[in-house]
Amino acid sequence: MELFEAIHCRASYRKPFRDAPVGKEQLEQIVEAGILAPSGYNDQTTSFVVITDPTLRAEVAELTGNGEAVRTAQAIIVVIMDPRTGEGRDFQFGVENYAAATENMLLAVTALGFASVWIDGALRRDDVAGKIGRLLSVPPELEVRVILPVGVPAEEPRQAAKKSLAERAWFNGYGA
Amino acid sequence: MELFEAIHCRASYRKPFRDAPVGKEQLEQIVEAGILAPSGYNDQTTSFVVITDPTLRAEVAELTGNGEAVRTAQAIIVVIMDPRTGEGRDFQFGVENYAAATENMLLAVTALGFASVWIDGALRRDDVAGKIGRLLSVPPELEVRVILPVGVPAEEPRQAAKKSLAERAWFNGYGA
Repeated sequence: MELFEAIHCRASYRKPFRDAPVGKEQLEQIVEAGILAPSGYNDQTTSFVVITDPTLRAEVAELTGNGEAVRTAQAIIVVIMDPRTGEGRDFQFGVENYAAATENMLLAVTALGFASVWIDGALRRDDVAGKIGRLLSVPPELEVRVILPVGVPAEEPRQAAKKSLAERAWFNGYGA
Repeated sequence: MELFEAIHCRASYRKPFRDAPVGKEQLEQIVEAGILAPSGYNDQTTSFVVITDPTLRAEVAELTGNGEAVRTAQAIIVVIMDPRTGEGRDFQFGVENYAAATENMLLAVTALGFASVWIDGALRRDDVAGKIGRLLSVPPELEVRVILPVGVPAEEPRQAAKKSLAERAWFNGYGA
């Protein structure tokens, strides 16, 4: 799929997925897109666990409130951040890094004909992120930050309406 | 350009740009890619100022240490975050939002045959971000977070080497 088409078609899909497979090679292609995202100092602070095991998927669905997308997804990509500031580094870019990786993966999901949604806030309550981390043997010094349910959408994904260019961007001065 | 090609070709380009134009329509297409990125609660907390004015460009180059890319760029896209948590919102996703928008723009830059680099840390020292904000009349409640110099690269951009999939991603368990 052409880049700009993928950017226009990417949508936050929260509805059920069809009972159709998502192949291992396609999942690897999606995660590879995440790996190729930029990171501050090229420190590559983001790592990934792809859940395909049905029991683990059901446990993550349960922990996150059994939303339709997570409950019916054929795979769940878990995005993990290393929050530590590297030696000799002035700044930590962990959040920026995993966000760029997540956006790359959402575009890859779209280009391959699947759908997903960036789930983040639901992990910040009641230590859900920590519980998912322990379920997947994520080292305690790392943080689970996002999950992406992936599957073939049963309904047409629709991108949320966005404000226009004129309302959010200007040349040579804010609001100019 | 095909999405996966754009993801593979995107590079952090810090070398000089050629004295070749970057059109207003192309800059709008790049910023539109940023606008279409997802944001928490669809709150669209990211806004943009595109600097094409040569005097303003020179001032931003001066403020950020006169790196070759910023000094020779035909345009500089300034990425601005609203750090306020919206009413009725439990969380603030400003960093995630601008990072996803920035990644979309870097891919668009690549697809259009230009190059850029995500400049962030250089703005966090000596209130450089604040100085750029005041230069561009950015409201004081908002934060300048990133600048992207944009131009036709004089040298071939090369993506930094990344660890392999096997070193950063696993199925059904961390390090499995």
